[in-house]
Amino acid sequence: MIKTLAFAALATAVTLSAAAFEARAEENNATILHRQGIYKVAAGHMTGLRSILAAKGGPVDNLTYHANGVLTAFQHLGDAFPPGSDKGETKAKDNIWTERAKFDKAGKNAYTAAVAMAEAAKAGEKAETRDAFKTLAGACKACHEDFRKD
Amino acid sequence: MIKTLAFAALATAVTLSAAAFEARAEENNATILHRQGIYKVAAGHMTGLRSILAAKGGPVDNLTYHANGVLTAFQHLGDAFPPGSDKGETKAKDNIWTERAKFDKAGKNAYTAAVAMAEAAKAGEKAETRDAFKTLAGACKACHEDFRKD
Repeated sequence: MIKTLAFAALATAVTLSAAAFEARAEENNATILHRQGIYKVAAGHMTGLRSILAAKGGPVDNLTYHANGVLTAFQHLGDAFPPGSDKGETKAKDNIWTERAKFDKAGKNAYTAAVAMAEAAKAGEKAETRDAFKTLAGACKACHEDFRKD
Repeated sequence: MIKTLAFAALATAVTLSAAAFEARAEENNATILHRQGIYKVAAGHMTGLRSILAAKGGPVDNLTYHANGVLTAFQHLGDAFPPGSDKGETKAKDNIWTERAKFDKAGKNAYTAAVAMAEAAKAGEKAETRDAFKTLAGACKACHEDFRKD
């Protein structure tokens, strides 16, 4: 009896979870979710890097993992801002589409800094990794100010 | 002259950025930042997976990248909730430390689901990947409800 009740409770929980999953799935734009996922991955790795390079005390063994993580995230971004993907729950400003050359340049700045950071981390150059991290953090911030809603 | 002004503006921007970097670094706990970074990476990969498996239309080529990404993030978590790391800007509830066995079990549930998801994605089993994704999303949600502040 207890087992049956426990199973019923579990089944209900699973059903609710699946329903919530479907409901959430319906109200979202795949293109927007994709790019938000990629940027969130990159941001998470930047936070991990902050724990090591800025706050100091984070696990130094994770340095290359996080540095590569930012770069790999960017490499999976693809065509993330196609025309029409400005509608929905997105912080993307309209000028991404109206000032595309400027936006692409901002993205390139971040990518270049991410490459430098991954290379420095791989080479075990902690000071250079930190410098590249600062440059990258600045590139992220600059792009957010120009192209992301608060 | 224009070049000089542009350089001065750039130098100012870099200085401000570095100052902001240091200021942010001072007020944060490395242990808390570390675990927030890891969970943010995992959450980002889950969002990427949602774009493919739930919202549908996200880049399917990214399936193994995201599935492995969640697992790899968990594998870099380490001893992320040591005693004393309950103070600071953290959403960690006190019962992480007072109900540790329950917390560890919740983490193990998520990890087990992440392993299953990565294996299913590697094998190209999309339906199984989706099932494991749902299980993992449920495990994340359950742990957040019990152990994370809103």
